[in-house]
Amino acid sequence: MASPFILHSKASDCAARRGEVRTLHGTVQTPVFMPVGTQATVKGVTPENLKELGAQIILGNTYHLYIRPGHELVRSFGGLHTFMHWDRPILTDSGGFQIFSLKDLTKITEEGARFKSHLDGSNLFLSPEDAVAVQEALGSDIMMCLDTCIPYPATREEAIASTDLTSRWAKRSRAAHKERGQLLFGIIQGGMYPDLRAKAVEELVEIGFDGYALGGLSVGEPAELMMEITEQIAALMPADYPRYLMGVGTPENLVEAVYRGIDMFDCVMPTRNARNGMLFTSSGRLVIKNARHQDDHRPVDEECDCYTCRNYSRAYLRHLFMAREILSSQLNTIHNLHYYVGLMARIRKAIEEDRFSQFRRDFYAKRMAE
Amino acid sequence: MASPFILHSKASDCAARRGEVRTLHGTVQTPVFMPVGTQATVKGVTPENLKELGAQIILGNTYHLYIRPGHELVRSFGGLHTFMHWDRPILTDSGGFQIFSLKDLTKITEEGARFKSHLDGSNLFLSPEDAVAVQEALGSDIMMCLDTCIPYPATREEAIASTDLTSRWAKRSRAAHKERGQLLFGIIQGGMYPDLRAKAVEELVEIGFDGYALGGLSVGEPAELMMEITEQIAALMPADYPRYLMGVGTPENLVEAVYRGIDMFDCVMPTRNARNGMLFTSSGRLVIKNARHQDDHRPVDEECDCYTCRNYSRAYLRHLFMAREILSSQLNTIHNLHYYVGLMARIRKAIEEDRFSQFRRDFYAKRMAE
Repeated sequence: MASPFILHSKASDCAARRGEVRTLHGTVQTPVFMPVGTQATVKGVTPENLKELGAQIILGNTYHLYIRPGHELVRSFGGLHTFMHWDRPILTDSGGFQIFSLKDLTKITEEGARFKSHLDGSNLFLSPEDAVAVQEALGSDIMMCLDTCIPYPATREEAIASTDLTSRWAKRSRAAHKERGQLLFGIIQGGMYPDLRAKAVEELVEIGFDGYALGGLSVGEPAELMMEITEQIAALMPADYPRYLMGVGTPENLVEAVYRGIDMFDCVMPTRNARNGMLFTSSGRLVIKNARHQDDHRPVDEECDCYTCRNYSRAYLRHLFMAREILSSQLNTIHNLHYYVGLMARIRKAIEEDRFSQFRRDFYAKRMAE
Repeated sequence: MASPFILHSKASDCAARRGEVRTLHGTVQTPVFMPVGTQATVKGVTPENLKELGAQIILGNTYHLYIRPGHELVRSFGGLHTFMHWDRPILTDSGGFQIFSLKDLTKITEEGARFKSHLDGSNLFLSPEDAVAVQEALGSDIMMCLDTCIPYPATREEAIASTDLTSRWAKRSRAAHKERGQLLFGIIQGGMYPDLRAKAVEELVEIGFDGYALGGLSVGEPAELMMEITEQIAALMPADYPRYLMGVGTPENLVEAVYRGIDMFDCVMPTRNARNGMLFTSSGRLVIKNARHQDDHRPVDEECDCYTCRNYSRAYLRHLFMAREILSSQLNTIHNLHYYVGLMARIRKAIEEDRFSQFRRDFYAKRMAE
């Protein structure tokens, strides 16, 4: 199978790499951050806002869309792109993580996942084949295999059982996928056991996917452990395919994971924190409700050229937050996503110019100076 | 005092009129609808959204802005325009209606209104002079005199006392206003007693304002009574000054009041109803959560060319509403404001071409046909 990934360049002193992923709706320059649009909308922003701030690809959630509005409705529109008015690439996760999060409401069997809807408690079932079929209906550019997540901490026996099942499901997912240009990524589980993860990589590569994802990280383990696993396993992942670290993370996490060879990221942090009034800036985090911003005429980040920073003061953003105005979520989300997307653009440029290690040092120095 | 109003044309068979109001931030073509931006933001939309949908002027609430974020903060920005990133005209109400709405928390004396903040219960006081000073700090293009509202129903004695006090306050407001280009409008009270309202018009015209508003309507009285009062009093209001019907109303109310000679309107209906999923269309109202919209690929209104109708289906809007997504409020608000602003544009054109009475008949015929 031809890889959708083209490697542009590699850093000479670390594992960082600059590449692109080709999809049905266009090419994505990597490393890339994907804003999360769980329910067929990135909360608080329009597709035009996303384009203006430079988003290349967004993520949708199979679990949520399967339950509401239903994949058949989305299919009737020819897929998510038309339904939600977004013509750039979309990646859909498989629903594995959401089903895992439901905990007591879920029963995993060899066949698939039996779970209750978080909306009305109705009984639902999703097999690996179903997850592929749903994502085919959603028309996403990149589909993810249904996987089973491993709690942290987990015993070695739990981790083995879950990882093996994920590999068997991956094989069924691959077989179920009708080739129509949509890419299908496999998910590497294995918990915090490097040997199990290494075995999972082997099994998934044997099956053959369009890309490989690290799942089950950022589930409560220390950041150091997450990066240790990422470093070890990224080194084992095929160099000529895209590498995706799922659900990660903080700006620091992104810098560290790029350093270890990761190409793709998604996380609710910039959007969720925006709605809670936590803003990312070039010199660290800012909590907009703090009284010290009350009279502050400056933008959130004087180095930022996003729509929010070009036109609004901290004092106004604080007022909107205190008054619980919708515009607060809109403006904060635009800023935070612009920060994440802009950070990745600067990372890409640094890798192109083979100065990413220096970029990484400067990134931390700037924060320490504050 | 020179009037800021220029009359362009008058309908030959009704009181409708086409004109303009000149303000510090530009000229407003009338009849006009002013979207309500209570807390220095029109809920759910950006200033760019407002401009794209054709809003000429917006409204801010003195009461709310006085309490939060405070007029001194807004003054430090040079006024609301810079604070909220809106460079077109702004009208600020005086706070009279909000203070009236607080009922038991308010005590009205000759000097002014003593009331408790709805935010923290703190004791506040606003005199007519204070209301002018606050609005001067806010830098609005059109300021309103502090008035006292009359409940519906009210006895003649209550109405007389309140109307007389409003006239005395109007005189003090006029005296307090330093001439700096900001316009000041007087508010005609009088409840449902036409003779009291006629007396109020006389007294306010004697004082002399840049425009005259009908206050205390749309407070629970039947629509017929509201229009009866509007018709009688509009005929007594100076023809060479702008006439503003405060807090009104439905699309039907606007058509009827224009027919009776009103130039300016504001109402929370398009924005509030948008957030509640009630959408205005050329053939009547539409409740987006209704199951019949579930699979509907059509836009909200096939005759509408707003951003929402150009890009999104009823099915998608219903999904967003059911999923309680922020984008639901954004898209619905854009549509409803576009409807209101577009209705006024069509009304202006009809008056220019002296076919407003026909426009009014067609407006109802279309609704009846549905």
